[in-house]
Amino acid sequence: MVVRVAQYTLDVADLDLMAGFWAAALGYEVDAGGDGSAKLYPPLRTAGAPTVWLQGSGTPKRGKNRLHLDVVADGDPRDEVARLIALGARPTDVGQSGDEGFVVLTDPEGNEFCVLDRAPTRP
Amino acid sequence: MVVRVAQYTLDVADLDLMAGFWAAALGYEVDAGGDGSAKLYPPLRTAGAPTVWLQGSGTPKRGKNRLHLDVVADGDPRDEVARLIALGARPTDVGQSGDEGFVVLTDPEGNEFCVLDRAPTRP
Repeated sequence: MVVRVAQYTLDVADLDLMAGFWAAALGYEVDAGGDGSAKLYPPLRTAGAPTVWLQGSGTPKRGKNRLHLDVVADGDPRDEVARLIALGARPTDVGQSGDEGFVVLTDPEGNEFCVLDRAPTRP
Repeated sequence: MVVRVAQYTLDVADLDLMAGFWAAALGYEVDAGGDGSAKLYPPLRTAGAPTVWLQGSGTPKRGKNRLHLDVVADGDPRDEVARLIALGARPTDVGQSGDEGFVVLTDPEGNEFCVLDRAPTRP
């Protein structure tokens, strides 16, 4: 018996801002719940990929998130970083050297995530 | 151009404890980096599923995590919750009513995650 990850849940302050950003970043579709939350669904061609639940929260972000997502681009990662920045992401410094093979960004509410040069592979 | 989630990175204090828990929870295999971090790989039958990177951190957890994972069981979710608790998870109260269709647990270092009754589906 095992579990698999079916969803990422993120506490957000500005639901529309964050739904817009993450839907565009991942190519997901937004289903606003009308209850201060929104579900983001993967396109049908990637059915089975985890959904994203954006959950309204009045608690401000404090410090670096203990859990973050690492993403890979379907094209050139440098182009993808530029696209994400145009969508509202910002480069951030969490102590990385810059030679690690990833770029550290924050989403519009400061949540850290990394754009990897390539998907992790088994050693 | 879009990104897809390729990895979850979690800051951990006790690497062995957390690698053991999450590998058993997800059915992943541990590759200890020997550098205070560990990679967890999905089994070959689920190649393409995100890896987990456990990253040693001296910073203690503060408050509820802003991002958390929601998981689904491949069997009865009640049996799965019992299995996860036997592995070191603990039930926790983040304000849920108990009628939401998920059980809120924490991993051995207090990171919240939910066991959903079923995978999210499109409305």
